[in-house]
Amino acid sequence: MVMGMPAVKPWVASIDIGGTWTRFAAVTIDGEVRGRERFATGAESSPDMVRARWRDRWAALIEREGSGGPPVAVGIGATGPVERDSGRLLEVPNAGPGLQGAELVAEFRMLSGVPVVLERDTCAALLAEAHAGAGAGCSELVYVTVSTGVGGAVLSDSRLVLGRAGGAGEIGHVIADPAGPLCGCGRTGCLEAIASGPAIAAAATRMLGEPAAGRLRELLGEGEPTGLRVSEAAAVGDPVAIAILATARDALARSIVDLANTFDPERIVVGGSVAEGNPGWIPVLQHAVREQALRPTRDALSVVPAALGDDAVLLGAARLAWEESGIASGMP
Amino acid sequence: MVMGMPAVKPWVASIDIGGTWTRFAAVTIDGEVRGRERFATGAESSPDMVRARWRDRWAALIEREGSGGPPVAVGIGATGPVERDSGRLLEVPNAGPGLQGAELVAEFRMLSGVPVVLERDTCAALLAEAHAGAGAGCSELVYVTVSTGVGGAVLSDSRLVLGRAGGAGEIGHVIADPAGPLCGCGRTGCLEAIASGPAIAAAATRMLGEPAAGRLRELLGEGEPTGLRVSEAAAVGDPVAIAILATARDALARSIVDLANTFDPERIVVGGSVAEGNPGWIPVLQHAVREQALRPTRDALSVVPAALGDDAVLLGAARLAWEESGIASGMP
Repeated sequence: MVMGMPAVKPWVASIDIGGTWTRFAAVTIDGEVRGRERFATGAESSPDMVRARWRDRWAALIEREGSGGPPVAVGIGATGPVERDSGRLLEVPNAGPGLQGAELVAEFRMLSGVPVVLERDTCAALLAEAHAGAGAGCSELVYVTVSTGVGGAVLSDSRLVLGRAGGAGEIGHVIADPAGPLCGCGRTGCLEAIASGPAIAAAATRMLGEPAAGRLRELLGEGEPTGLRVSEAAAVGDPVAIAILATARDALARSIVDLANTFDPERIVVGGSVAEGNPGWIPVLQHAVREQALRPTRDALSVVPAALGDDAVLLGAARLAWEESGIASGMP
Repeated sequence: MVMGMPAVKPWVASIDIGGTWTRFAAVTIDGEVRGRERFATGAESSPDMVRARWRDRWAALIEREGSGGPPVAVGIGATGPVERDSGRLLEVPNAGPGLQGAELVAEFRMLSGVPVVLERDTCAALLAEAHAGAGAGCSELVYVTVSTGVGGAVLSDSRLVLGRAGGAGEIGHVIADPAGPLCGCGRTGCLEAIASGPAIAAAATRMLGEPAAGRLRELLGEGEPTGLRVSEAAAVGDPVAIAILATARDALARSIVDLANTFDPERIVVGGSVAEGNPGWIPVLQHAVREQALRPTRDALSVVPAALGDDAVLLGAARLAWEESGIASGMP
């Protein structure tokens, strides 16, 4: 080290592009996450406006974290489906025009001048949970996120199950109940259409006209219901809110047992804001697996909450960026 | 070659142990299947009787095919769940006492004196279809068999998805309809409880008391209905039989689309006696995938009938036996 210069650690830029929020951060070679920033993805606005915001926030990240030099690589975890080879998003369901077909790798390559790697957000989160989170030590792992959407990813023999075009793990779009509500994907009764935050809110909206829902109407007050507010109403004992959440939880339990029989994993990690907001679901899911999955799967399978919260995608994308850089990082 | 001796090709013994039928065959180094024999598995009888039959039929196979010497290895594909490392069957659902915990590798090692390899039957069939059947050329492949049971196996990046204890791919035990009938596994509405041959027969039995089922009663005649006889009644236009089969087909279609979204495969191969008996199902399944699976999965995914019929498990087990022997075979 040259005397008088500050000690500078190599770092990667890590980017999490979700349907609602985008997160930028710097991750140092020893795994420290610094300079986290969150802003609205703005998928409903034009591609040009979305790109302008990325450029603006990229400049701010470099300003904050790049005093010792640029990042050695950029890792992006983005709401799917992604096309890894071309580095772009494909048609993104349930999203506005701002993200459709976005050339993410080309864009951030131009901004950064360094290698850029792109992965689906759920795959990045799975990798982070598998290395340093709730799935640590597992070579057979299923990750499920229940949030604005329902998604997932799968590790088999320590490798991501990707499928032909990287679409494997879209487990929000399996049928949990053929008699259930219409899903944004066009099918009827997908897990996402029953257990996601917007699905819980929609179930509450459908109930609000019922005479039995008088107390729920009071508790939710004005404005559109949200999944979070339904959970709050259930927490104070409203029976209609409790029933709505039980329907979502039971659909999730069915799909979790389906995943157990389909993948025979060591562990199923359940994350996302809806799961975090309903911690009582985890023991119910565990019980369902113990009672209903096939042997020998059910004898050794645990269902656990995700451990990395909002950092999961950032940490997984950072791991991929370090791999892309060719520099061995000290990330766990 | 010594003059006067017959030309003898190296061969492996291949064994397919199903819940109903057991098949033995010899497979030569160039992939020729010889000396096929089929006999009732007899799972309902005692383990000793099942073993006695294996020994008897093994002696007959060696008598028929072993004039030039013993096989170089034995490959077994057995109704799951199998424990590969210990070479035995675990608890087999819906089967009598004859197969429970059977020490297959030890048994056939003792009989043959050569290396023995054990795989779940659906995994063996998948490998055969992937190399020399309807999935040839695919590195991302799902195999589904609809027969006495419903099962499957998955190839991801040209490798079997096995799971922790080899149970992955048990896709007969995913819920196709939570309002469906009770399954032998204890859950309600599993695909197997709706689309398997016995499930179709059970649906017919439930309908026979209905006034609308008069013609079906006549067509089925005396005795217990079977899936095959329901298909025959549908083929001559009986509307009740047609409706029963449509329920089974639509449940299968839902699960096939679920598998498409879960694995993003290049191809889904559908085999088994029920699928073979209802060839009109394949275009319906293909249509469901094209209309309902997520993009980009649905754009490139084909649903095709299995190509290897009753030989699939034998051919896959033979392939594994050649691998186990260390001799490079000319099997396709």
